Amino acid sequence: MTREARVRISPLGGVGEVGKNSTLVELAEEMLIVDAGVKFPETELHGVDLVVCDYSYIADRLDSLVGIVFTHGHEDHIGGLPYLIMQLDPHDPIPIYGTPLTLGLISVKLKEHGLLGRVIQYAIRDGQRSRLGPFEIEPIAVNHSIPDAVGLVIRTPAGVLFHTGDFKFDPTPVEGRTTDNERLRQLGDEGVLALLSDCVRVEQPGWTASELGVREALEQLIGLAPGRVLVTTFASNIGRLREVVRSAHKLGRKTSIVGRSMEENLRVARDLGFMNVPEGSLVDLRDLNDLPPEKVVLLSTGSQGEPTSVLSRIARGDHPLVKIQPNDTVIFSASPVPGNEESVARSIDNLFRRGARVIYQMIDPRVHVSGHASREELKHLLDLVRPKYLVPLHGEHRMLWLFRELAAECGLPRENVFLTEIGDVVVFGEAGAQREEPISSGSVLVDGLTIGEVTNVVLRDRRRLAADGVVFVSVTLDRETGELLSGPDFVSRGFLQLSSEETDGLFEEARERVCEALEGDQRRQPDVNYLVGKVRDTLNSFVYERTRRRPMILPLVTEV
Amino acid sequence: MTREARVRISPLGGVGEVGKNSTLVELAEEMLIVDAGVKFPETELHGVDLVVCDYSYIADRLDSLVGIVFTHGHEDHIGGLPYLIMQLDPHDPIPIYGTPLTLGLISVKLKEHGLLGRVIQYAIRDGQRSRLGPFEIEPIAVNHSIPDAVGLVIRTPAGVLFHTGDFKFDPTPVEGRTTDNERLRQLGDEGVLALLSDCVRVEQPGWTASELGVREALEQLIGLAPGRVLVTTFASNIGRLREVVRSAHKLGRKTSIVGRSMEENLRVARDLGFMNVPEGSLVDLRDLNDLPPEKVVLLSTGSQGEPTSVLSRIARGDHPLVKIQPNDTVIFSASPVPGNEESVARSIDNLFRRGARVIYQMIDPRVHVSGHASREELKHLLDLVRPKYLVPLHGEHRMLWLFRELAAECGLPRENVFLTEIGDVVVFGEAGAQREEPISSGSVLVDGLTIGEVTNVVLRDRRRLAADGVVFVSVTLDRETGELLSGPDFVSRGFLQLSSEETDGLFEEARERVCEALEGDQRRQPDVNYLVGKVRDTLNSFVYERTRRRPMILPLVTEV
Repeated sequence: MTREARVRISPLGGVGEVGKNSTLVELAEEMLIVDAGVKFPETELHGVDLVVCDYSYIADRLDSLVGIVFTHGHEDHIGGLPYLIMQLDPHDPIPIYGTPLTLGLISVKLKEHGLLGRVIQYAIRDGQRSRLGPFEIEPIAVNHSIPDAVGLVIRTPAGVLFHTGDFKFDPTPVEGRTTDNERLRQLGDEGVLALLSDCVRVEQPGWTASELGVREALEQLIGLAPGRVLVTTFASNIGRLREVVRSAHKLGRKTSIVGRSMEENLRVARDLGFMNVPEGSLVDLRDLNDLPPEKVVLLSTGSQGEPTSVLSRIARGDHPLVKIQPNDTVIFSASPVPGNEESVARSIDNLFRRGARVIYQMIDPRVHVSGHASREELKHLLDLVRPKYLVPLHGEHRMLWLFRELAAECGLPRENVFLTEIGDVVVFGEAGAQREEPISSGSVLVDGLTIGEVTNVVLRDRRRLAADGVVFVSVTLDRETGELLSGPDFVSRGFLQLSSEETDGLFEEARERVCEALEGDQRRQPDVNYLVGKVRDTLNSFVYERTRRRPMILPLVTEV
Repeated sequence: MTREARVRISPLGGVGEVGKNSTLVELAEEMLIVDAGVKFPETELHGVDLVVCDYSYIADRLDSLVGIVFTHGHEDHIGGLPYLIMQLDPHDPIPIYGTPLTLGLISVKLKEHGLLGRVIQYAIRDGQRSRLGPFEIEPIAVNHSIPDAVGLVIRTPAGVLFHTGDFKFDPTPVEGRTTDNERLRQLGDEGVLALLSDCVRVEQPGWTASELGVREALEQLIGLAPGRVLVTTFASNIGRLREVVRSAHKLGRKTSIVGRSMEENLRVARDLGFMNVPEGSLVDLRDLNDLPPEKVVLLSTGSQGEPTSVLSRIARGDHPLVKIQPNDTVIFSASPVPGNEESVARSIDNLFRRGARVIYQMIDPRVHVSGHASREELKHLLDLVRPKYLVPLHGEHRMLWLFRELAAECGLPRENVFLTEIGDVVVFGEAGAQREEPISSGSVLVDGLTIGEVTNVVLRDRRRLAADGVVFVSVTLDRETGELLSGPDFVSRGFLQLSSEETDGLFEEARERVCEALEGDQRRQPDVNYLVGKVRDTLNSFVYERTRRRPMILPLVTEV
């Protein structure tokens, strides 16, 4: 092992934000990417469907990419892969590595985009080592809110790295997969240069509760329910889907799983053996409707109040096959992802209005647990792994900061902990660790079929349109004499109610002002652009003066 | 007392939503309004500044209004008054009733709008009875997160009503005002026909913690802070502002209060004797900057991450007078109002980035307590007041529903509890209680200087503009021949980046399509509206086909 070897780590996403997790690992100019997630935009990113990482640094060095390794199948870890492929646009297929379920979910996604042929898939398994260029990877089983999740040991000539993926320590995991404490301790004994760790729940004291408690709570609630039970949870929580079906069966009920994303995940899970449920316990929705209410469980999408989800449609009364009936119990076996609190609240309110009894985490904390580690578990991790350096990942800035504090409490010096922003570079070697010049990175916005076409300018314009609307002014002038042939005509949207007298009066006056402004200049036959500017300025002042609003003013001056 | 007397209750706001609390009480066609609040819109209400209640029912019967009574000075109870006055547009001044601090805060608001002369103010005090037409009101002291808050006894020939206003039971209130348990018990002994009660925290088990704990926590944190301390809280929590100043003084520090809304409230509070702090403990910001860091507390706006607030500007680095320094401690002595979680998180992250140590409720629950009652306190209220009927107020639908369940646990029959939507009418009398035909009510949107001009149509348009932007198409035709003289010309905003080649190509092709579409019709010289429709349809299909987006298409066909 060359002692001068140095490995570079650069988070491309997932730090200072939650979502689009993706980390670059570089050694002697060969590159490995861990995860390629997607992020769902905050409300301000109007009309933007998705946000992915900017992979231009890798696109410029495509020959050096040895592969992409995925820790688990959640959207914020695999959802960006199609757009990564579009950005890299490689000649040859890219090698990708993941556990069977992870690859199964990735395949569905790539197929939707017609990109299956752009990758070669390699299945990885706990404890099995694979060589990727100068890197040797070894997956370690971790428990998370989706099956088949792993952390990754990355062995390099510079030292051993451990990337946790997303994890918790659940001593009684219902899907049977615990985080491999023993292997982690061995790794710590071997000596870990740098730990790259999920810290999204560092603000929570104690230990995250076990999935077993959720199963027990759901069994109790389903058992007590007088009529039908409707359950919603995260579509990717395949372990929970399975437990609901099994518990329902145990209590003499059949289950239907309804909702596109959930049905898709169900299909992959069944094909790969992750949905081992009793014969006949899962039925079609139409068969469910023939059963008496107390024999029914409906398991559906809608845990985040997503408008197109099954449960939200039921809550609004516009699902074609399912209407809320008296004695229905609805269980939200999930928590609102930050930003979704209002849509969840609305869904819950509407279900109550329609006569259901709704049970949700705030009034019964047992019905959901997180898949991430809380503070004591993070300490436990540090205790097992005992890294020399720490790079907190998968957290907003305050979480990275708090993890550094926690590590200090455990004896890890603050200067050995690196708080990063997207694109920051930290270099580790036997000699030590330091920061280097950040690489170009950032976010790419995906809007419909276009990727990267929606830019800050477009967003800024949409924001203004959203706030005050738009007024389009058209003026037609005689090309030779400058005489006003037609207009000013106004078309406005999102500004004021067009039908009221007041608004008509407003535009009448606006018309006069614009004519006055143009009169002086007409005789001088000035540049069209100059006239456009004059019309805009005149209207901007006038409209603000009258209404205190600033709709976007778009003039068009046509000469014929 | 006439046994046939019946009193009608109608919530005009604050049920099925949080905000714009306002309740109508009607007896023999005389009307009393309790509170007139405002609501800050959810993100979807683009560009709308405020939402207030629709008071048209009262406007149509203005002579019957005996007065408006206010329970306390929070925005969601007094903020709608200017807009209520604008809607009623009364000849004579309206009598309004409130405690001194409440009237003081109302006066500031009315002055801003130039409406001070449209009301006559009557101060009310705990235990003092006042007659308003057929109603007799008596304020009862309640503890809340603003001083001088009251519940209202409303005596009518039909029976006694009690409206709680907003309240909790704090046994150790630092501002000295407890909820008057004794008076409430007496009221229950007298016999209460209907209880109209705040239930916004019914989802929380137990008792809301005491304000005393907050004082102790803040003292400890300020005492331990190595350098300056910046505290933010709700600008209306005058009791907390006072406690921070006193605690700081006790620990040898001086305090500056900074931020428009906070400074305004401070002025009113001082004038009315609610800000009794040691001489010299409150100083100007400029004087504060001369003191050593460990002698400084800065108390400012920004607890909700509001972009224009002082702390948010400090977090972004663009406050002209205050920059984060090493060893600064920032304390968020507040909780994020639902909907504000993201902006608060962003503020916290930015403060950490600038090197401050930030303490907030999630990592130290002691630094803030709510001003509303939790479940056990609501039970305690029912136990004291023992009403015959209950109308839950100040809550989203699920909270009203849960309060009914809680009341049932306490022996109040479900059929005696009325869950309402805005405008619903419940009538109470000796004979019993029932619902009657709802009155017209709802929401009025305030946008800049216009009130009620922004309607659902305008909002729907803004939503579409926000999602996909807008494309204007202008075409000029010869009036006689129908010949195309100019265009199609496009102006787009919020759609795609205009400068890329791809977009130019797109519009070129769009131009051809529109020309083709018009060609056929030109010879037939059809109606301009028909042509407009044709241009719109052509472009809608074309743009969607190419981009999978649906920008708003606005054609203008001009004939010259």
